[in-house]
Formats: sequence, C-alpha cells, structure tokens
Amino acid sequence: MENRYDIAIIGSGPAGLEAAINCKIRNKNIIIFGREDLSNKLIKAPKVDNYLGFHGITGKELKDKFQKHIDDMGIEIVYERINNVYAMGEYFALMVDEKTYEASSVILATGMEYTKPLKGEEEFLGKGVGYCATCDAPLYKNKIVTIIGYNKEAEEEANYVNELTANLYYIPMYRGEYNLDKSIKVIKDKPVEISGDKKANKLILNNSQIETDGIFVLKDSVSPAQLVPGLEMESSHIKVDREMKTNIKGCFAAGDCVGKPYQYIKSAGEGQVAALSSVSYLDNKDRLNK
Amino acid sequence: MENRYDIAIIGSGPAGLEAAINCKIRNKNIIIFGREDLSNKLIKAPKVDNYLGFHGITGKELKDKFQKHIDDMGIEIVYERINNVYAMGEYFALMVDEKTYEASSVILATGMEYTKPLKGEEEFLGKGVGYCATCDAPLYKNKIVTIIGYNKEAEEEANYVNELTANLYYIPMYRGEYNLDKSIKVIKDKPVEISGDKKANKLILNNSQIETDGIFVLKDSVSPAQLVPGLEMESSHIKVDREMKTNIKGCFAAGDCVGKPYQYIKSAGEGQVAALSSVSYLDNKDRLNK
Ligand SMILES: Cc1cc2nc3c(=O)[nH]c(=O)nc-3n(C[C@H](O)[C@H](O)[C@H](O)COP(=O)(O)OP(=O)(O)OC[C@H]3O[C@@H](n4cnc5c(N)ncnc54)[C@H](O)[C@@H]3O)c2cc1C
Ligand SMILES: Cc1cc2nc3c(=O)[nH]c(=O)nc-3n(C[C@H](O)[C@H](O)[C@H](O)COP(=O)(O)OP(=O)(O)OC[C@H]3O[C@@H](n4cnc5c(N)ncnc54)[C@H](O)[C@@H]3O)c2cc1C
Repeated sequence: MENRYDIAIIGSGPAGLEAAINCKIRNKNIIIFGREDLSNKLIKAPKVDNYLGFHGITGKELKDKFQKHIDDMGIEIVYERINNVYAMGEYFALMVDEKTYEASSVILATGMEYTKPLKGEEEFLGKGVGYCATCDAPLYKNKIVTIIGYNKEAEEEANYVNELTANLYYIPMYRGEYNLDKSIKVIKDKPVEISGDKKANKLILNNSQIETDGIFVLKDSVSPAQLVPGLEMESSHIKVDREMKTNIKGCFAAGDCVGKPYQYIKSAGEGQVAALSSVSYLDNKDRLNK
Repeated sequence: MENRYDIAIIGSGPAGLEAAINCKIRNKNIIIFGREDLSNKLIKAPKVDNYLGFHGITGKELKDKFQKHIDDMGIEIVYERINNVYAMGEYFALMVDEKTYEASSVILATGMEYTKPLKGEEEFLGKGVGYCATCDAPLYKNKIVTIIGYNKEAEEEANYVNELTANLYYIPMYRGEYNLDKSIKVIKDKPVEISGDKKANKLILNNSQIETDGIFVLKDSVSPAQLVPGLEMESSHIKVDREMKTNIKGCFAAGDCVGKPYQYIKSAGEGQVAALSSVSYLDNKDRLNK
C-alpha cells in the first residue's frame, strides 16, 4: 500500500485548495489534481469584491495569493485530469488514461461545467458518444472519429487517437492556433445535434453534417456522476449533507459541484468542511482497525 | 417604515462580515451589530494557516484585513449588543436595552460562547437569574443584586444597576483593572452554583456564599434560543438547512453558531450563503407584494 494516499483531492479551485491545506495541516498524505492556472473561473474574474480580506482584487491576483499559500505549505498540484473514480470498498481507484492512483478517501472539488450538453449527447452517451478519446480509442481502429474539443488539451488526445483511426474530424470550440497532426480535418462550424439510430452516427452542425462512427466531446469537466459511478446527484449537483458527505462512504464533495451559490468563499468553506470530515473518517477507520 | 432595514446582521466575526459584504453588493439596506475588535476569536489567534489566500498570518493581522475590506465598502458596524430578537410576522424587532431596531430579515452570526452555564443557571433563568442587568434593573430596586461579569462591558451595566440597588456584588471572571463605583463589592472568587427554592436566592462560590435577590450572568453571548424565542436548535447549535435557513421565516444563520467545525473560512462561506438566501427571500417577498 506504499502508493496509496490518504486523501485524493480532485480539482484545484478554491474548494480543492482549501481542502488540501486543511488535510495537510492534519498531517494527511495527500495528492491533489488540477490545472496549472488553478481554475479558469479564477483567472477570468475581472474584479472580486466578496472574498473577505481582499477587496477589489482581480481574479488573477487572487489566484497568485492562493498559489503562494499552497507553495508556502509545500503542496504541489499534479497537472492531470482524472477520468474516473471507482469506489473499491477499502479504497478508491483514480484513473488518468493508463495510470491509476489509489487513495483511502476522495474529495470531489471539480467545479461546475457550464457547457450545456448537445442535443443527443446524453442520449447516445456510451453508444458512440464518449468523454475520453484516449480511453476508448481501441474501439475505433480504422474507423471515422469526430472530436469536439473545448480546450487545447483536447488537441493532444486528437493527435493520439489519430494514429489509430481512418479519419479524424476535429471541431474546435475555442479560438487560437491549433497544434494538430496534418492528417486531422479541422472543421470550424458549430455542432448542433448528435443523431443516430441505436448508435450515434451523425453530427449535425450549423452549416454541414458529418457521418461518423464515434464522437468524443472533450470538455473541461465531465459530470460528477460520470466521473464517479454510483454517485448520487440532486439534479445537476452532487448530493451532500452538511458535513459534505456524499452517498459513497469515504467520498466527500465541495464547491460549485455541490450546489449554488457559485462563489469562491462558499466553495473554500465547504472545501474545509469536506477536508475535516475526510480526516475524521480516516481517523475513525484507523481506530476500528486497531 | 423609514427606520426598517432590509437585513440586520448580528455578529461581526467572519460569518457576519462576509454576510454584510454580500448583502451590500446586492444593494440591500443593512445594519450590522458587533464589536470594535470584530471578534475575540480573531484577535486571539496566534497564527492562522488555513484561511486560503493568507498563510502564516496572525489573527490580529487578519482582523485588520477584514476591517479594511468593510471600510473600503463603507460598511460600519454598530457597536451594540442585541438582547432579543422577536419575529413579528412581517419583520423582526431587535432589542438593545431600551432601543428597538426593525429589519425585514435577520442573519444570526453570533459565534459560539464556550462558557458553560453554571450549575442552576438554566434552571433559575427568568426566576432570579438574568442575562441583561439594565433591562431587569427596575425589578431589583433597593434589593441585593449579584453580577457575574465575563468582560469589561459588564462593569458599565454594574455601575448603572448600582444606582438602584441596595447592595451590588460584582464577580469578575477576567483579570485586569476594574472601573467600578466604590460602593460595589468586588468578590474575587469562582462561582460554582446558583441555588434557591422557587427563585434563585443564593450564589455558592468556591470559598464563600452570597445571599442575593437576583443574579445576572453577563457573558459575551447568550444562547441563540434565548436571543431569538422560538428558534429551533440541534443540541447547542442553530438548526439550518444547506441554504442557511432557520425554522423561522426570514431568519438565517451562519458560522460557529450553526455547528462545527469552528473555523474562519467555513464561517465566512456560510455567511455568504446566508446573505444570498436572505436577499432572495426579500426579492421574492417584494415580487409577491407587487
Ligand atoms: C468570469 C467569472 C467571474 C466570477 N466572479 C466571482 C466573484 O467575483 N466572486 C465569487 O465569489 N465568485 C465568482 N465566480 C464564481 C467562482 O469562480 C466559482 O464559484 C468558484 O471558482 C468555484 O470554485 P470550485 O473550487 O468549486 O471550482 P472551480 O474554481 O471551477 O475549480 C474546479 C477545478 O477542478 C478542475 N477539475 C475538474 N474536473 C477535474 C478532473 N476530473 N480532474 C482534475 N481536475 C479537474 C477544473 O479544471 C478546475 O481547475 C466567477 C466565475 C466566473 C466564470
Ligand atoms: C485562540 C483561537 C484560535 C483560533 N484559530 C483558528 C485558526 O487558526 N483557523 C480557523 O479557521 N479558526 C480558528 N479559530 C476558530 C474561529 O475563531 C471561529 O471559528 C470563528 O471566529 C467563528 O466565526 P463566527 O463569525 O461564526 O463567530 P465569531 O468570530 O465568534 O464572531 C461572533 C461575533 O458576534 C458577536 N455577538 C455575539 N452575540 C451578539 C449579540 N447578541 N449582539 C451583537 N454582537 C454579538 C460577538 O461578540 C463576536 O464578535 C480560533 C479560535 C480561537 C479562540
């Protein structure tokens, strides 16, 4: 069990960071996954007035304060995207493409993805529609695959999958330069609907249509219910109690992903509660095992 | 209704301050009650490491950051202690000795008083035992009154009551200089029990006993259930849901007073949620009245 962490934290927004700080203060062996810029929703805020202690600060400045705080405490974020979390009973298995991490407890602080699903996306999910291209790539050997990419990281997945497929269409949902293999066909058009029969086989765009064997929608985040099979939701949010417990033993959640209002300090406060609940969950478990 | 505030916030710790900030940003007409030093629990913390954005800050420094934040936003704390809050249906009446304030909604952010009640204190409450000496003073004209004072402010009450009573005993629960009228008898002994028959008539201390007609226990705060008659509690905490609603319509609560863990940013996060819930309560009410 050398490689098993006490607590794995998924997400590096205010909820995840405050959780990490508190777990570390309580001497837990932690790992935290997230982004180099901590959170898109931090760096994009033009002016923040409602985070007690900082008045009239920009999101970028606040991000720097957060970064300094974790740096001072020796907390390092692992810049990886968790694709799935499986509750194995005694521990959790966290999957990053081919890699697996293990942790005795998990804190979900993944934020809220505001991108609405496309028409047909949820209906065909698992039937020709997926959220992890690298995971499912072997299924699409020599076939036609379409990737709808919401961020630059999707380009890497596209390049990887492109080595296997007969044909790869890439639809960028952002502006900028694309760092894609030459054989990938970039289509600059707005996706409207995924259609098909038993399986998805067509992507309808504003000005065109693509016949395809599989469609991957690579967003900033997938819904928590997809991330953690068996997780109980309350409409689009993770269901938690006042201690930030989810329905899965040892799994806690905090921040935007557990509900409105969507705000920094509300998220941080919940991250703290989730951390302390996770710590006491582990301490109780240890006591029972003695 | 000129003097009716939209929202009254009781308490100037992190929960109350964050509530005030958010109510003000939402253009509500607010009043906030508290202390000049904001919170005893702030200024006393030697070092705070778990408030995201500030690492290794002293409680005093953090207090200064909070003060600057509210100063910048033009929020002024009223340095008064609310004795009672009455739910009047359409509004709340907040009592400060002889004064009354009115507000359409209330946020309780009173923190947790760690002082345990004395033996007999709760039993004789209202029967010779009280928490507001100035309020009940007229009942004790020419009688013997004992004041157990937990802070310097209690001295003012003692001096005021002393003008009416035949005899005043003052038992300071803190160290330092006492600024008391000469005729007040200061007793430096530890109170152990309040006893009596139908009414309290005796205070038993470690090394002595006092026969008395009334006893006032002047602590930093009274229990929320005493502050707000009818408020539902869950053991020693105010019962709230995830929106920080109490059982009383229009009355919200946040911070230590609603439960553990007792921490700054957890309190601030809840203060924010309470504020936004209060704002939407008022907005819905307005809509119905149109
Ligand atoms: C433009 C803008 C302005 C705003 N202004 C304010 C404001 O002034 N005041 C205020 O209080 N709030 C403001 N907000 C809201 C605030 O940004 C959010 O409520 C807050 O960021 C939520 O924090 P969080 O930690 O829950 O999630 P987030 O900040 O969204 O962080 C979640 C993190 O988890 C990562 N993640 C998700 N899934 C995975 C995975 N599977 N593996 C690894 N990492 C993952 C994400 O990439 C992200 O970095 C603003 C938001 C925006 C967009
Ligand atoms: C020595 C010490 C060190 C601590 N260190 C840390 C730490 O490192 N990190 C951390 O996260 N937490 C720490 N805490 C805990 C933290 O102080 C509390 O959790 C936090 O202050 C609670 O905030 P609050 O807003 O709920 O209440 P409080 O901060 O207690 O504020 C409540 C305020 O309301 C006022 N009030 C009460 N009743 C009334 C009334 N009827 N009328 C008017 N005003 C009223 C009180 O006077 C007080 O000013 C520490 C506490 C102590 C004592």
